[in-house]
Amino acid sequence: MNTLTAYKKHLQEIGKLQSAISLLHWDQRTYLPQKGHAARALVLGKLARMAFELLVSDKLGHYLEELETQDDLSLEEQASIREVGKAYRRHKSIPPDIYEQFTIAQSRSESAWEQAKKTSDFELFQPHLQKMIDFSRRFAELYGYEANPYDALLEEYEPGMTTEQLRLVIEPLRKKLVPFIKRLREEGTHPHTEALDGAFPVDRQEKLSSYVLKAMGYDFSAGRLDTTVHPFTISTGPQDTRVTTRFINNNLFSGIFSTMHEGGHALYDQGIPKKLHWSGLDGGASFGIHESQSRMWENMVGKQLPFLRFFQPILASVFPEFAHTRPETLYNALNTVTPSLIRIEADEVTYNLHIMLRFELEEQLMNGRIGVAELPELWKGAMKRYLGVVPENDAHGVLQDVHWSTGMFGYFPSYMLGNLYAAQIFAKVREDIRDLDEQIANGKLVVLLSWLRKQVHRFGKMYEPQDLLQRVTGERLNPSYFMRYITNKYSQIYKL
Amino acid sequence: MNTLTAYKKHLQEIGKLQSAISLLHWDQRTYLPQKGHAARALVLGKLARMAFELLVSDKLGHYLEELETQDDLSLEEQASIREVGKAYRRHKSIPPDIYEQFTIAQSRSESAWEQAKKTSDFELFQPHLQKMIDFSRRFAELYGYEANPYDALLEEYEPGMTTEQLRLVIEPLRKKLVPFIKRLREEGTHPHTEALDGAFPVDRQEKLSSYVLKAMGYDFSAGRLDTTVHPFTISTGPQDTRVTTRFINNNLFSGIFSTMHEGGHALYDQGIPKKLHWSGLDGGASFGIHESQSRMWENMVGKQLPFLRFFQPILASVFPEFAHTRPETLYNALNTVTPSLIRIEADEVTYNLHIMLRFELEEQLMNGRIGVAELPELWKGAMKRYLGVVPENDAHGVLQDVHWSTGMFGYFPSYMLGNLYAAQIFAKVREDIRDLDEQIANGKLVVLLSWLRKQVHRFGKMYEPQDLLQRVTGERLNPSYFMRYITNKYSQIYKL
Repeated sequence: MNTLTAYKKHLQEIGKLQSAISLLHWDQRTYLPQKGHAARALVLGKLARMAFELLVSDKLGHYLEELETQDDLSLEEQASIREVGKAYRRHKSIPPDIYEQFTIAQSRSESAWEQAKKTSDFELFQPHLQKMIDFSRRFAELYGYEANPYDALLEEYEPGMTTEQLRLVIEPLRKKLVPFIKRLREEGTHPHTEALDGAFPVDRQEKLSSYVLKAMGYDFSAGRLDTTVHPFTISTGPQDTRVTTRFINNNLFSGIFSTMHEGGHALYDQGIPKKLHWSGLDGGASFGIHESQSRMWENMVGKQLPFLRFFQPILASVFPEFAHTRPETLYNALNTVTPSLIRIEADEVTYNLHIMLRFELEEQLMNGRIGVAELPELWKGAMKRYLGVVPENDAHGVLQDVHWSTGMFGYFPSYMLGNLYAAQIFAKVREDIRDLDEQIANGKLVVLLSWLRKQVHRFGKMYEPQDLLQRVTGERLNPSYFMRYITNKYSQIYKL
Repeated sequence: MNTLTAYKKHLQEIGKLQSAISLLHWDQRTYLPQKGHAARALVLGKLARMAFELLVSDKLGHYLEELETQDDLSLEEQASIREVGKAYRRHKSIPPDIYEQFTIAQSRSESAWEQAKKTSDFELFQPHLQKMIDFSRRFAELYGYEANPYDALLEEYEPGMTTEQLRLVIEPLRKKLVPFIKRLREEGTHPHTEALDGAFPVDRQEKLSSYVLKAMGYDFSAGRLDTTVHPFTISTGPQDTRVTTRFINNNLFSGIFSTMHEGGHALYDQGIPKKLHWSGLDGGASFGIHESQSRMWENMVGKQLPFLRFFQPILASVFPEFAHTRPETLYNALNTVTPSLIRIEADEVTYNLHIMLRFELEEQLMNGRIGVAELPELWKGAMKRYLGVVPENDAHGVLQDVHWSTGMFGYFPSYMLGNLYAAQIFAKVREDIRDLDEQIANGKLVVLLSWLRKQVHRFGKMYEPQDLLQRVTGERLNPSYFMRYITNKYSQIYKL
């Protein structure tokens, strides 16, 4: 067996283990009975360790070393070696016992966070958070970086992105967003939302969600839709990408948009071609690019008039109370802007400000410019400045998100980048598909899917995010597309 | 770490892998989307190989060798070493490449069987069946045996059982069963079954099944109920034993009894104590003992008057058409005896004859006294002699069961043994719980569960089946309990 074949075989072994791990995770979050959780953690721990061992194995190191100098490789093979090489070196740079200490501290920290959030008791969480920060700073040193330790963490979620670049995007964007929100609130006409009121039995909501997923082009023979507390999308193997969603009895569109959001992620995974499966390239280009797909379907398709024109009769067929609701009424009601405390409930105008706040705190923490104890107050101050609202307690403030409790520093920016990438890519979609609105209004949502398949999905992780964006849109990240999209849409809705 | 600790740790590693494998299997048979099957087979193959490698590892061999001479072990530890030792030696006796050839042939053979069954084309299946027989005969030689190669295969499913012992049970039983069935048919009064007619929406059937499972004492916080084409029970880890069942729109009780059958298996697994988890003892004593639990709940509880007295009002609350149906009417209608072609549809009187036929053919095949080509005709002849019915085609005859296609020779007798064990154990239950019928009629099904927990479940695989039976009932297998149970019950129903 030559090295390339052995290398590919090795990746497939890792892929198989990761498929099993994904199914164990999916089941844990959907159907696992309560008493099964203790043993499940042990099973997952074992499989994760085996996958880790394969990823940092000397065998793989030798394959990579040899293949990195080989010059007769296909583009896919080169990209695979680049990506797997990066993962290999990152994982290898952490000494095994530090990693083990980290995973133990991680699970304690997450439990402490859960408890602290319930009782809004930041002090309970503080020592654990301190540990997570210490580990992350140590990891950054071990991974290595040029300008800023935070860059080393960003690399995990958004390869190639730096603190400096983020700052150059964030500062001008914030300076436009904050006054725009103020104008909407002070000079705009806040839409009526009564049209959305009501009680909506969950089984019928589920029918609607399935219908919409199918209309988007989601392949149910290579996936499924289930319900969970926290919606997510997961691929438990090639040709098996599962979506979960959540239904709220008195908030019909929450479930629909949650499904469209997760559906956007799922279409990306379903669009990754067979030749990339279990090759190290069978994910999205980055967390940000992945999020661009979910946000595009949720916001730029779902929360738009053409889609609502298509959707209203379907909605009325399941919930006859909407028989006489105009799509325009739905459109306005679904696009209100309200500065609020909780990120995951934020509208698309205020959402990025929640991220900017987190980015600034993370970056300062990683550079030791602020301490953990100051976080609650710094949080409140920034909320006041950016959104004009202040949490009354830490549960609605600094304790609201799970990410920091497991040491995921560097993750939050992906959410904002997803919004910006989505707007930039969608502008190109509009250029290429002139009658897009008409097609969507006619239920032909798959014209968008076909475009995304060809321009984005089929490359999997072959290109780094900025290179992919350059290929797709002709330029690297340009936040003006997002600002233009937001300004146009909301100026009209708010009658500015 | 001393050897005993290392040994236990090793078993836990195997246990974790087997838990993951079980979940992958469960998912494959419940929720896996169609296109996910190809990759799933690869994932399962990898994990199975890893578990196999751990089971035949030299490390385990050394532990066993050392521990087998150690004399300060607990009863559980001794039993674990006995059971794991047996599995180790069995697996070790097959050379890896023969085993690999077997698994490849197995999956081809199962596909061929599926096709052959569809088209009722025995010749299509014949060469594959020949291979499965050849492999099994070879395995029997490698496992080793004293009197009969078939003994070596029986050992897998019913430890300690031999061909000779089975013959001593079967011959007299058949000589009583065949004329008894004849008498029922010729002299008896066949009950009316019209009371069961109707159409029963599946969602309401599901409610009834959940209710019955709960009444049996099944712990839903350590398991779940789903629907599948072929019902099964599986433990995907300690504290997670899942039941699946099947609902037929115009056959209400089919689903209920399928649930009670699988529920019986599940209660056994849920009753295995924590200390036996992942120790090699966390299964039933044998396939036959496991089947005794499912058959007991299905037939000796479910298809009896006391249960139907308890169940009728619940049934009527879900399906009001049963509001005026007397429990006695249900009882008679649910206990008709009809010689038929298909094993899995057979009533409890004729069922064992289906097994006897298979046992006789298997035993002769394994000893080379008959050839594959003769099977269809031998099958028809035996059906005629034992049940007086002859299949018109092989799909309803020799091709009906999947077992032979995957080389599971020696498995069928467990089904019959399950019936015999159940009757023998249930006779003891009646002796110990004098007011059992009254308790069941009052919905106190858990009195039976408590008894089974104490007498059977808590031992897991600690005792070989006959030793367990001796402990529980005071004697080894005695088929007269079954014959007495059948004769009493059906003489009364058929007014002999």
